[in-house]
Amino acid sequence: MADKVMIPARKGKAVVVDKGQSIRIINTYGSQVVDTWIYNLHDLSEFQSNEHTRAALLKLQFEPGDFVYTNFRRPIAKVEQDTSPGVHDMLMAACDKYRYQLLGCTEFHDSCTDNLANGMKEIGYEVHETPSPINIFMNIPWTTKGDLTIDPPVTEPGDYIQFRAMMDCIFAFSACPQDILPTNGVDGEITDAHFQIF
Amino acid sequence: MADKVMIPARKGKAVVVDKGQSIRIINTYGSQVVDTWIYNLHDLSEFQSNEHTRAALLKLQFEPGDFVYTNFRRPIAKVEQDTSPGVHDMLMAACDKYRYQLLGCTEFHDSCTDNLANGMKEIGYEVHETPSPINIFMNIPWTTKGDLTIDPPVTEPGDYIQFRAMMDCIFAFSACPQDILPTNGVDGEITDAHFQIF
Repeated sequence: MADKVMIPARKGKAVVVDKGQSIRIINTYGSQVVDTWIYNLHDLSEFQSNEHTRAALLKLQFEPGDFVYTNFRRPIAKVEQDTSPGVHDMLMAACDKYRYQLLGCTEFHDSCTDNLANGMKEIGYEVHETPSPINIFMNIPWTTKGDLTIDPPVTEPGDYIQFRAMMDCIFAFSACPQDILPTNGVDGEITDAHFQIF
Repeated sequence: MADKVMIPARKGKAVVVDKGQSIRIINTYGSQVVDTWIYNLHDLSEFQSNEHTRAALLKLQFEPGDFVYTNFRRPIAKVEQDTSPGVHDMLMAACDKYRYQLLGCTEFHDSCTDNLANGMKEIGYEVHETPSPINIFMNIPWTTKGDLTIDPPVTEPGDYIQFRAMMDCIFAFSACPQDILPTNGVDGEITDAHFQIF
């Protein structure tokens, strides 16, 4: 198993994962949300899509054994293992400069949208859109009426989720810098997270 | 009030709506789903986004009085009236050729994805992506566990929903051609729908 690679607190990181390899995303310190995107390595116009995954699974949220699907309705990754309580989010947009402006920020604030672009750029790829991310470890409960809340993660340090790549792909991550809402815990502390490929 | 304009069964239609105008989408025959997209007329890279609307409303589904938001987190339309039971969908991807291939179609089948592109082209605009649509009148109930089902619409002939444009925009529609699943009723009959601007 390869070494753990850091996703630095508040920042992005992207990595190529070959078909058949597995990637483990680790909540190292226990309450860090990791926004995640998955692209087809050979055609960035194909990427993991929450609205297509929901239509394929007929579920709001995947479980171990499920696939996640692209906008071309092909399985791009399989959920192999999940040692966390299985609470992840596929409903909420990635945070962006507009979000922080609306929350009262008058100066620059890191955002998952910028982190996606920067992480991809670091390994030589350009993206101009921000697909709806898989917000790993993010806790957005829904009611039967359809009300949503932004609750702190229910994870423990070391919890991980593991995906197997069903095609050559790029996984892009952001250690979500949301420190105003309780997305990353009530203390608003943002920490590093890690991934590991094998 | 202007004349009713037809959204032909199985096809797409797009129209410019000026800031302050209202547009009523009518379920003329009672069980037709109308996939709907809204773009900023002056910058097509800004469009109605379900994942940003959910984050703003903290709801899976809007109600009269709510706004729908763009990917730049600005209100693009206000839900003014809804004479239907208020059941619409913001979770499911637009149907596309891949969907029909997976459902066993070996020949061409109309799709909402093609209809968006064709409707926009008819009025002189090109789109290369298919944002997650507002599936007006589509009935996708969810459970507390997160299971989804594709149920027939609960609408009656003449039911309508009405939006007010908060900026100059384009509304693009598709009278959803899904005739294999019960999306448009158990008989799979696809009908015209209409809109009216005033």
